Formats: sequence, structure tokens, C-alpha cells
Amino acid sequence: MTVLDALAKNKSAAQQRLIDWLRIPSISTDPKYRDQCRAAGQWACDQLRELGFDAKLVETGDVKDGKGSGHPVVLATIAPKQSYSGPHVLFYGHYDVQPVDPLNLWESDPFNPVVRAARTGQAGGERIVARGAVDDKGQVATFLEACRAWKQTSGHATNGAAYTILLEGEEESGSANLERFVKDHAAMLKKTDVCLISDTGMVDRDKPAITYGVRGLAYTQITLHASNQDLHSGLWGGRCPNPITELCYVLSQLHDKDRRITIPHFYDDVRPISQAEREAWAKLSNDTGVTAESTLAKIGLKRDADVGESGYTFIEREWGRPTAEINGIWGGYTGEGAKTVIPAHASAKVSFRLVADQKPEVVTQQFFNWLKSKTPTGCRWELEDLHGGYGVTTPTESVTLKKAMRALERATGTQPYMIKSGGSIPVAGMLKSMLGLDTIFMGFGLDDDRVHSPNEKFEIACFEMGMKAHAMLIDELTK
Amino acid sequence: MTVLDALAKNKSAAQQRLIDWLRIPSISTDPKYRDQCRAAGQWACDQLRELGFDAKLVETGDVKDGKGSGHPVVLATIAPKQSYSGPHVLFYGHYDVQPVDPLNLWESDPFNPVVRAARTGQAGGERIVARGAVDDKGQVATFLEACRAWKQTSGHATNGAAYTILLEGEEESGSANLERFVKDHAAMLKKTDVCLISDTGMVDRDKPAITYGVRGLAYTQITLHASNQDLHSGLWGGRCPNPITELCYVLSQLHDKDRRITIPHFYDDVRPISQAEREAWAKLSNDTGVTAESTLAKIGLKRDADVGESGYTFIEREWGRPTAEINGIWGGYTGEGAKTVIPAHASAKVSFRLVADQKPEVVTQQFFNWLKSKTPTGCRWELEDLHGGYGVTTPTESVTLKKAMRALERATGTQPYMIKSGGSIPVAGMLKSMLGLDTIFMGFGLDDDRVHSPNEKFEIACFEMGMKAHAMLIDELTK
Repeated sequence: MTVLDALAKNKSAAQQRLIDWLRIPSISTDPKYRDQCRAAGQWACDQLRELGFDAKLVETGDVKDGKGSGHPVVLATIAPKQSYSGPHVLFYGHYDVQPVDPLNLWESDPFNPVVRAARTGQAGGERIVARGAVDDKGQVATFLEACRAWKQTSGHATNGAAYTILLEGEEESGSANLERFVKDHAAMLKKTDVCLISDTGMVDRDKPAITYGVRGLAYTQITLHASNQDLHSGLWGGRCPNPITELCYVLSQLHDKDRRITIPHFYDDVRPISQAEREAWAKLSNDTGVTAESTLAKIGLKRDADVGESGYTFIEREWGRPTAEINGIWGGYTGEGAKTVIPAHASAKVSFRLVADQKPEVVTQQFFNWLKSKTPTGCRWELEDLHGGYGVTTPTESVTLKKAMRALERATGTQPYMIKSGGSIPVAGMLKSMLGLDTIFMGFGLDDDRVHSPNEKFEIACFEMGMKAHAMLIDELTK
Repeated sequence: MTVLDALAKNKSAAQQRLIDWLRIPSISTDPKYRDQCRAAGQWACDQLRELGFDAKLVETGDVKDGKGSGHPVVLATIAPKQSYSGPHVLFYGHYDVQPVDPLNLWESDPFNPVVRAARTGQAGGERIVARGAVDDKGQVATFLEACRAWKQTSGHATNGAAYTILLEGEEESGSANLERFVKDHAAMLKKTDVCLISDTGMVDRDKPAITYGVRGLAYTQITLHASNQDLHSGLWGGRCPNPITELCYVLSQLHDKDRRITIPHFYDDVRPISQAEREAWAKLSNDTGVTAESTLAKIGLKRDADVGESGYTFIEREWGRPTAEINGIWGGYTGEGAKTVIPAHASAKVSFRLVADQKPEVVTQQFFNWLKSKTPTGCRWELEDLHGGYGVTTPTESVTLKKAMRALERATGTQPYMIKSGGSIPVAGMLKSMLGLDTIFMGFGLDDDRVHSPNEKFEIACFEMGMKAHAMLIDELTK
């Protein structure tokens, strides 16, 4: 019996196991569900043990420190075959789920999973509807079921490949204890070579994809102070600095005419987009019909709003280039009507999306130095580093990435797309910054899965595709 | 008996009359005091009739229109001597007062006037403490008492000079009905040549002053729209316009390197500061020790914060030059912490202080045209004209201004200062725009009179100086 035969045979048992797991309301952000969170972790731990992993729940802290609810991490290892010489994979997932409000918008109980067909007008086929169906219990289950099929056919859950499993219980509540956990287990985790996460999506139903990079983030809040009190603009207008005007003047210099960021050395660590990537992304746009124009239309803008760093397409700008954005600005009078004030200060939130190999702490310092070099006469800055995260770009020549692509193709019969995301995934950034690990995102979600919303679902076809893909990846790693 | 003898003789009776008026709680903004407002207007009307004026209460509207409380205007005229060939003066004042909260901070009942000496540590001499003591009943009373003295000595309240009296009852609640009143009485009011207002202050106790100009105002609210929804800055950063960034970019161009306003034709109607004014203002700074440095120190800034249009001193910039100020700005996320949003729109409140002979409606249109000429790609403007007001600058060669200066000098034995204010006084702007009238502000208040605050006061010395000054101005007009 092949591993794919085993998967086919176990279909309904696999669904049932996922449904059992989904019944446990592991809402990590709500202390009321503390015991259920642990139970959901324990469920995964038991599964892993059954599959032959050395698995345990690791405590992470408690509510006393105010940092998290202290839901345990599931940590599991398995002894590889002595002959295994491939990469050691760190599989990351999470067993906690989002809250379910507004409950009245759910068509069925979020923790009483229902398997049903698509309703009239809905795309796709049969699906499991429940909180956590796709985010992330269902996607973790695709891996667990692949292991089960390998265990059944080869006697070893990863067919001898080196895997370490890390299932977090606080992903949906801010991963407050993850950094400490990674620090405490750094020696062990450093033995892994690459991280594998199934918590993302595909381009579309018939368009599987591997996400091989996300951007990093450096987020700051800046305040420009002038006078020690709000002033009457009649008496003081034109006599002293207006911090709003001065802030606008400084921030207007963030970009040059080509919309490149003007901060010295900002681009020093930016890894250029390769020719192969440019071609692949152009082909993707061409194949899928996703263009600058079609995406702008969704947000009410026309083709002329396709603005950004010159010399790059919209995909290149999102996936491969860093940006500087003003996410918020405020100062002076912002209520109804007129008030003739010159305020004492004005503030902005300014963030940078980063690409490999930029470091958020370096970029933040470069930005602050740049601001200081432009301090308006008579003013002073108050600068805050709100937080940062590393971007991740797994090199396209990565062995594991290539194997994942091949596995996905074998599982689906389709050449998968290689995509990136302009967003930031904190855990990937953390593993990159703390352990130097790149991450491969092999996910099976769809845009309309209603992640974090009522009636979250995971389509059976996606669930099965995921099991096959993980099974094939193990095959690729070990053959 | 000279008019000054008459004033000296009537001192305590004059005080008593003012006290009687101050006892009437004419808080115009609070409908509860509707009858008392009318009573305070009636009181002034009766005084003017007693002095020989043809005086009446003119209804202005009612609460139904939602525009004002409809407190009547006191309107009075007096037949001048046939031989009088001087200017026809429109004396403007107001009989309504500010609310009294917080009542617990008053040392005495705000409507039970107390005459008392300065307390230890307080500057100045005996004073009347009451709501309205200086703003504006006390200052109007200086004029009424001068008329009384002239009536007593010459038999004619203005010694034959042409005066029209307009006492408003809604100044402290926004003058909602004044524009309509002026329109309805335009034919009559147009016969006047110059407006005289006693509602301002002096440079200091021993430094009387005439204010011969205030700035105008054009106030706008502008919003820049981009996408039709807030966007995720990871997915959209660098792919479409960020309205905050674009707004900063446009507003940063409001001023050039010399801090001159760059809007085309903005300065076309600006009356230049005369050489005489420049010299007088420099002398004022020199004589009083009021410098850029000393004023900046009061708001926590150093000499280097003396920034503004180059080529002009701090006084020149406040009194004689127009400005553009951003009074408020807002857009995106302005709460605690980080949110990676690109907002759909960003807004600012932008106002201009204007000098003679700029017109607010013209400047607003110039600004809007300028904004439209700089519309960022993919964005659109929403532009609102919030309100405007004309500035006033009475020409220094004005006969009445010269006579007022001479009168003030005779009343005080001191050469008065000629000053302006960078603020805007709506009634003066309205009279300028509707009737073409310039205004002379001959006021007797002091910086520490606590206008609009608890324990408002008018010093007896200032009260008496005001009576003398108005008496001398009548003398100057008629000799």
C-alpha cells in the first residue's frame, strides 16, 4: 500500500479526527477557555505520541506576568533514520483559535463542526464549518494525517526524515510567550534547518502555491514638539514653528520623485529581486489575470493610482521591495468647525515594510537618525520604537523549497505558483531573527475561508490536498 | 466748567451707574438670561435717551431660526451741530457678557460688583470686580460717561459731533444676527465714516495704545481621498497612494524656503508695511523691551524659534503680514500602539491670517485652486470653506486715528503707542466687508483683567482714563 492509498483509505477517519479536535473551544485570548486550550494542546500531543513522536506539553508562563495566558507549547521530536541526510524541518502550527463573536452570524455552532455542501451561489465543494477549521487546526491536521499514513505504510511517521514539531497555543492572542520559549529552547531548535508552516493560502482553488517570503516590519511613533503650550494662531501665526507644518515638511521628504525612500543606507541590506523572480511574478500576473488595474478596481481606484517605487511592477513592489508608510497622523484641532490653534506638538505613526536582509532595529535607527538630521529649527523630537519584525525570504535555490514545490505538484497534478506576501508573519520573523531560520509556507486555505469570521470553513478538497502534499514532501525529503 | 472738571466731579456717580449696569446678568449664550439681556440693553437705551440720543431697541430675530438668541441691538443717533464737518463715528460696543463658570473660583458674586484695592501681590490700584466689568460694559460706560460730561458742559452729548451708537447683545454668543442687522440697516450705517470700538487693551498700565488694525481670516478644511476603504499596509504599501503621505507632500509646499506662501497671487492684494510703521514698531519693541526672545521665552522656546517670513521682524510678521497655518491634521490610526493601516483619506484644517486688502473668499479660492493643481495621482479633494473674515487696517493718515491718538495723549499725559493685533475681530471684519468701514480700537483693558475668567475686573484708573480719552476725542473732533 502506498502512502497515497493509505490517505485515501483513511479519509473519513481523518475528517472525524479533525472534527474531534475542532470540538475543543481553544480560544486563547479568553481566560475562560484556559482549560480547553490545554485540552486542545493535549489532544495534539496525544496524536503525536500515537504516531511515534516524543511529544510533550511545555509550560510557557502564566497570567501573572501580564504577558499571556500561558497556554503550553506542544513540542515533539522524532528520531530520523540514521541514513537521513536531508534538511531537518521545523513544523510550526497553532492549536488555539480566534473568538467566535458575533455568534449570531454563525449558521451552526462554531464548536459543533458541520460537514456540508456549498450553498447555492457559493463556490467550492464540501466543507467543514467550524471555528479553527482552516486556521489552524485543519491545516495542522493535514500534516498529522500525512504522518499517520507514513506510519501505516513505512512504520515511521516521517518515513525517517528529521522533523521537529512546535504547536503554539497563543498565536491568536499575540504569541506573548513564544519569544521566551524559542530562547529557552534555542539549542534544540537551532538543529533544525528550515521552518515549514501550513497557515496560509493558495492563489485559488485550482492554483496551489508555496509562499516563500513575507516582509518584515519596523513600526515607530514620532512626535515633534515646539512650544510648551497650544497657541493662538492669530497672535503666534508666522512667529514660531508650527509643529504640524514642520512635521509635514519633514515627512514629505521620506520619498524622492521616484518614490524611493531617501533615508541614507536604507537600501543597503535589501536583497535584489532576481531575474527569475521577476519573470515568475510577471507570468503569475499574466496567467491569473491579477493585474495592477484589477486589484486597484477592488479598492475603488483606477489604473493611474498604480503608484510606487519606479522601475517595479505592483507585485514586485508588494513582494520584493521595502516601503515607508505613514499609518497615522494627528495634531492640533480635529473636531467640528474651526479653532485657530497652533498646537504644542504633532505626531505620526510611521512604519516600514522590510525585505530580506533588512534588520528592523537598524532601519528604525536609520530613520531616527534621519529625523534628527532634519530637526526643524526650534523643535525637538520624541521618538518611539513601537516594534519590529524580520522579513523572511527563503532562497529560491533552497532544497526544501524545491522539494515542497515538487511535492505540491505531485499532490495536485498542477505546477504550483511560488508567491510571496507583502504582509508580515511575526513567528516567521522571530525564527529568522532568533534562529536564522527561513520559512516555507505551504498552505491550503482559500480567500473565502472566512478566517477570523463567522462560518469559518475548510474545504474537504483542500484538506485532502494538504494531506497529500505533506505526504509527498516527506517522500521528497526521504527518497 | 470744563468737560474734564465735569468728569472729575461725577466720578463716584459714574462708578455707581456702571455698577447698576453690571448687576444685570446679561449672559447672552444662556437662554435663561433672555430677559436680563434685554434689561441690560434697555438700561443702555435709557441712558442714551437721557443723554439726548434718539435711541431704541431693535429686534434681531428669535431662537426659532437656530441662529441666535435674538437679543436686541441698541441703536442710537444724535443730530450733530450743523457746523460739524468732521467724520461720522460709529461707536460699537456690546452689553452682553460671558457665562460665569466656574462660579466657585469667584471671590465675590459676579453680578454683585465689588470695588476693592489690589490684593497683596496684585499689580494696579482700586478696581471693580464683576462679570462684564471690562468686557464690555465698563468700556462702553467710559464713552457714555464722556457723553454725560459733554452734555453737562455743552448741552450736547457729543458736543455736536456726528456719532451713531450700536450696542450688540450677542457678541459673546457668536454675533449670529449681526450680519443681518447690518444688512438691514446698511443705508443708515453707510453714512458713518469710521468705526470706534472700546473692547481692547493697552500695552501696559502706563502705556496706552490705539489698535489700528487686526488681521482677517480664511479658514478651510481639506480632505484628500484615495481608496474607498482602509487598507492593510503590508498588502497595499507601495502599491497605491497613501493619502497621509500625499497630504503631507502637498502641504509641505505651502511655504518656500523663505517661508513665503507659494499660492499664486496670494500676495497680490497685500498692503505693504510702510516705512513709518516699521520704524514705529521697532521703537515699540525697543521702548517696551518686548522682543522676539522675550515673547518666545513665555512659550518655552529660544531665540532660534523666531522663524517666519524672512525679511520681517516678529512684530511685523504678526501685525503686518499674512500667514498660512495648519491648525489641525488627522488621518489613519491615532490610538495606542501599532496598526498597519493605509487609510482611505486624510484631513487638515488650514487657515490663513490676512492683512488689508486681502479678501478671504478670494484667498480661499486661490488655495483651493492651488490644491487642485497639485492633486496627487489617484486621489481627489473634498474642500470646505469653513468661514472667513476681513482684516482691517485703518490708514495711519486717517484723521480720526490721529485725533484719537491726540485725545489719548491729552487724557493720559503720555504719547500712546500705535499697535495692531495679529488676531481677528469678527465685527471689525464684517463692518469692513459690508460697509467698507475701517475701525479704530481705543481700549483701556489690561492683560491681567481676566476677561472671560473668574474675578474679571476693570481698574478705576483705566475706567477714568477711558472717560477722559472719549471726552478728549469728542473735543478733538469738534474743535
